[in-house]
Amino acid sequence: MAVATKTLEELCINSIRFLAIDAVEKAKSGHPGLPMGAAPMAYVLWDKFMRFNPKNPQWFNRDRFVLSAGHGCMLQYALLYLTGYDSVTLDDIKQFRQWGSKTPGHPENFETPGVEVTTGPLGQGIANSVGLAMAEAHLAARFNKPDCTLVDHYTYVILGDGCNMEGVSGEACSLAGHLGLGKLIAFYDDNHISIDGSTDLAFTEDVAKRFEAYGWHVQHVENGNSDLDGITKAIEAAKAVTDKPSFIKVTTTIGYGSPNKANTAGVHGAALGDDEVKATRENLGWTYGAFEVPEDVLSHMRQAVERGTSYQAEWEETLATYRTKYPQEAAQFERMLAGNLPQGWADSLPTLTPADKAMATRKHSQASLNALAPALPELIGGSADLTHSNLTELKNSGDFQKGRYENRNLRFGVREHGMGSICNGIALHNSGLIPYCATFLVFADYMRAAIRLSALSQAGVIYVMTHDSVGLGEDGPTHQPVETLASLRAIPNLTVIRPADGNETSGAYKVAVANRKAPTLMAFSRQTVPNLEGSSVDAVAKGAYVLSDCDGTPDIILIGTGSEVGLCVDAAAQLQANGIQVRVVSMPSWELFEAQDAGYKESVLPTAVTKRLAVEAAASFGWCRYVGSDGDVISVERFGASAPGGTVMEKFGYTVDNVVSRAQALLG
Amino acid sequence: MAVATKTLEELCINSIRFLAIDAVEKAKSGHPGLPMGAAPMAYVLWDKFMRFNPKNPQWFNRDRFVLSAGHGCMLQYALLYLTGYDSVTLDDIKQFRQWGSKTPGHPENFETPGVEVTTGPLGQGIANSVGLAMAEAHLAARFNKPDCTLVDHYTYVILGDGCNMEGVSGEACSLAGHLGLGKLIAFYDDNHISIDGSTDLAFTEDVAKRFEAYGWHVQHVENGNSDLDGITKAIEAAKAVTDKPSFIKVTTTIGYGSPNKANTAGVHGAALGDDEVKATRENLGWTYGAFEVPEDVLSHMRQAVERGTSYQAEWEETLATYRTKYPQEAAQFERMLAGNLPQGWADSLPTLTPADKAMATRKHSQASLNALAPALPELIGGSADLTHSNLTELKNSGDFQKGRYENRNLRFGVREHGMGSICNGIALHNSGLIPYCATFLVFADYMRAAIRLSALSQAGVIYVMTHDSVGLGEDGPTHQPVETLASLRAIPNLTVIRPADGNETSGAYKVAVANRKAPTLMAFSRQTVPNLEGSSVDAVAKGAYVLSDCDGTPDIILIGTGSEVGLCVDAAAQLQANGIQVRVVSMPSWELFEAQDAGYKESVLPTAVTKRLAVEAAASFGWCRYVGSDGDVISVERFGASAPGGTVMEKFGYTVDNVVSRAQALLG
Repeated sequence: MAVATKTLEELCINSIRFLAIDAVEKAKSGHPGLPMGAAPMAYVLWDKFMRFNPKNPQWFNRDRFVLSAGHGCMLQYALLYLTGYDSVTLDDIKQFRQWGSKTPGHPENFETPGVEVTTGPLGQGIANSVGLAMAEAHLAARFNKPDCTLVDHYTYVILGDGCNMEGVSGEACSLAGHLGLGKLIAFYDDNHISIDGSTDLAFTEDVAKRFEAYGWHVQHVENGNSDLDGITKAIEAAKAVTDKPSFIKVTTTIGYGSPNKANTAGVHGAALGDDEVKATRENLGWTYGAFEVPEDVLSHMRQAVERGTSYQAEWEETLATYRTKYPQEAAQFERMLAGNLPQGWADSLPTLTPADKAMATRKHSQASLNALAPALPELIGGSADLTHSNLTELKNSGDFQKGRYENRNLRFGVREHGMGSICNGIALHNSGLIPYCATFLVFADYMRAAIRLSALSQAGVIYVMTHDSVGLGEDGPTHQPVETLASLRAIPNLTVIRPADGNETSGAYKVAVANRKAPTLMAFSRQTVPNLEGSSVDAVAKGAYVLSDCDGTPDIILIGTGSEVGLCVDAAAQLQANGIQVRVVSMPSWELFEAQDAGYKESVLPTAVTKRLAVEAAASFGWCRYVGSDGDVISVERFGASAPGGTVMEKFGYTVDNVVSRAQALLG
Repeated sequence: MAVATKTLEELCINSIRFLAIDAVEKAKSGHPGLPMGAAPMAYVLWDKFMRFNPKNPQWFNRDRFVLSAGHGCMLQYALLYLTGYDSVTLDDIKQFRQWGSKTPGHPENFETPGVEVTTGPLGQGIANSVGLAMAEAHLAARFNKPDCTLVDHYTYVILGDGCNMEGVSGEACSLAGHLGLGKLIAFYDDNHISIDGSTDLAFTEDVAKRFEAYGWHVQHVENGNSDLDGITKAIEAAKAVTDKPSFIKVTTTIGYGSPNKANTAGVHGAALGDDEVKATRENLGWTYGAFEVPEDVLSHMRQAVERGTSYQAEWEETLATYRTKYPQEAAQFERMLAGNLPQGWADSLPTLTPADKAMATRKHSQASLNALAPALPELIGGSADLTHSNLTELKNSGDFQKGRYENRNLRFGVREHGMGSICNGIALHNSGLIPYCATFLVFADYMRAAIRLSALSQAGVIYVMTHDSVGLGEDGPTHQPVETLASLRAIPNLTVIRPADGNETSGAYKVAVANRKAPTLMAFSRQTVPNLEGSSVDAVAKGAYVLSDCDGTPDIILIGTGSEVGLCVDAAAQLQANGIQVRVVSMPSWELFEAQDAGYKESVLPTAVTKRLAVEAAASFGWCRYVGSDGDVISVERFGASAPGGTVMEKFGYTVDNVVSRAQALLG
């Protein structure tokens, strides 16, 4: 390489470093170490390999970049700015970590175009990346034609020691290896430092060997600080391996360039401080002032705009050709990209009556999924090794496997957390794919961090959670949810729905599929429940509705959810027979109810009627909102027990007699 | 081996198999596959290697056995019965999975003596086992003398494909390898089947290689169905390796012996059915009836009683010698085993006044931990790579590392879930060790499954969770808890405490340390808070108390927790100045408050005073319980934001002015 070019490359790399250093310094908060150490690999990747259009962060066929080590986000913000994204200006960088800025403390996809997924909690980004790569492989298999390559992009991710220690990353990477995701390329920022200090303290495994064990293609760039050539060759080699994901271990120095703080834990997560900022400038020969970027650097890196515009134009020609040759596929593809659902997609959802066979709601879920599958080709998902318990198999498709990426049944293995994170990636690929994932409701605990991120990052993931109460029986307290519903209802932006029967299940799916910018979690029973008179598909969207009513003002309102609504109905009949005026409300979803106007809410739960008995085979935590201090809840306030489901439900008070009895006690 | 002995071994192994088959059949529920396949390895382990006293499941120096693949619990129940534990009789086995039985659907330590930890949720048991082995190593290093080996036992665990897929197991096993836990021996029941079917569907990594990468000693027994000799040699070899944990991959056939269902997913988790039970009996030449165990088998396996009694007697002699030679150490050892805390242990906890320096409660936590450390030699713990943020280092000790197991600072690495499960193991080693673990409160989500198991299995783990609200500032919404407190309060048997200042922090630790049979989780602020007038160490145990009062009946009660109590105090002063009678209640813990008698609760929150304003920088979910329908909550109902902490708190309404304003609005 000519000396002049080398100098330009160094200038670019140091520009990235110093934007990070200066931004963190100004904010007196943030993580300079990773940007300083990973700048070389990131520069090579963004400048020489990645295909993206800075002026169109949503261009479909862009390569995806994920910074799994999200604390190092100044690295990404610097690159977004330097390459010409409108979403990050120099002013935005100066507002790093300030109220209302576009450059928050960890990357947020909903805040900053160019950021694909929200990271920060370690291990999530790499797992999201597996999902992004799965989405690409799937769409490529479905839409590409021998003479027309519409879908063709890579997923690049930078992760560090922290991500590598987290279990969720191991889950996702094991699956990625199994699936042979050849267009996933991960850079391991191997700097031997984590917050506590040297990785010698707790992390001495052979990471490269572990990734070989997962079936990845593994390389090592020994000098990630300055061997740009080595980095380049490694990326080329990684791209050349098409049947395995690639892992490039890049050994770097955290805080590279800082004479006194490089290679220490201190440079990981704190501003360098005035003196050290000066010293680093001297050390690296950086004569530019705070936030000052050399012209040459800017014009060089802004070539990304020209390149990207050209890539996109090329692709749009391909799309035009595709439209002509394959009009049907093109129409579907573009419909999906636009985020539109097919006309009448919900029409296939079953509507049932009490005459229809009583079934566990997990079976109704199965029916709904399979009714939707042909109508919604974008529906893709699976279970964490509980396919035949969760009943989530799409019968009209095969398993998504290496070489069969067009299939829609995802086999996640016993990897709940990885599954959730992967689905976030599939959703945030933003190509109209609708991911669903499933496990036992109680194991939402394993994947809670991913569920939270679905809610935060506006990912329309559908969570199908079965075996939703102590009613599941013999598997016992480790498997029986008690407090799970409450814990999930507490998450902002997550819609939790617990359908009572077939109609409500259909209604739940109707909501979930339409809910593309936020996650929906549905809870289904293991045990059989009847189809209820008056149950409604469409009322589910209102969160709660009057299932059966009395004349005039009710003496008492029974509020049930899911498998307990039937008990309320039967209890109401008995109470009515004793002259008590009873209204039965089915309340499949708190969040949907809260979203209704005051008039509707009042019409369902009139303030004047203070005698309210909620019946739900779960903890009462939070129910005071709907039953008030004059009300009561038949609830589970302890862990469950191992016995046949019917026995457990009976012992725990979920009988018609007990509902009647508690209602009468309430009425005094 | 003589033919007669071989036959006896076969009889023993098949006895285990058929107890499992028959119990599952009778219950029409359960998992026969693993017991049938893993019976040979389990038999060799229990009969030839494990040192335990069936008549004293709590004998300190017993080897620990964990069935991480907890669904296969009939394997363990069969062994407990056959070897002579009183906790599992033949009747108990016949009551498998029935209400009130000692043989629940997954092993429960609090239900069945002989069961060390509660398993079922996959990956937990192996992670617990790492904790059990850490406890042994620690106690051995602390108490053993050159001439007196008091602590010397192994931890054996059987895990399957499911456990191996789970991220939590990878976290714990990576740490175990780093720590060189030589007395941890894991058997991988390698049967290539999980619930969905063949492991070819989703799990094709090279597991053995991954464990080599972790630094374990790895072996493979190719025929785990009948090569008892091979199993024996592998265990011997594993025991001979003293500086690495050992991983023995034992290839077996799930459901071994069942002619039509062996090696299928169907035999994993369902009763064989009458016909297949018969066919299996024929296939294995088992002429005994349901639940019938040959005399020879029983008397052979019951030799465990004689052996165990003798092991224990031997050990008690050692203990007697130890008492004589090392009376101080012996006294501490026996005090710990008895579960007694040292006299006056809590005296060292700081008591502060408003004159003392205002500090973040995480700093008070640090002070409390370090005050306790010399007083409580059993206190041992650490952080998931956030030691200097959580402030959890014990200054009077070094790091627990290979060759330095006597130290008390545990370096977990970025492995929150593994950390929680490991601490459950340390607690359930039942030797008086008091484990604590730490991370940012929001990352409780990563380890929720382990926290739940602490609560279920009665493990007195102390969770130290810092950075407990949006007040943490710049790290932003991925790091800022909103709904976390609510989600944790919902867990039965978990005590959640959010101290307001230094006194309350001391009070929280007082509760947590004394709480040995259930977990305690404490939430601490990142930001500085004042020491409050009237705050109380001892009142924390009551969950809520009157911090400051007015004359006569209050017009309004301000209820604060943690960092918001100070706001309530200041607001009260302003309101009082305007002639409003205000009581300020500090409510560090809901669970502790609920445990008080009605009289006390009424005295703090009199029913007649309905104007109540709660102030907590968290979601309002559940607060209706204490503020009622006439009350209000200053809460956070959305995800947080990245900005300096003071800015965020202000923007979100956590100012004295806003508290005053909302209080006035409530009063109308």
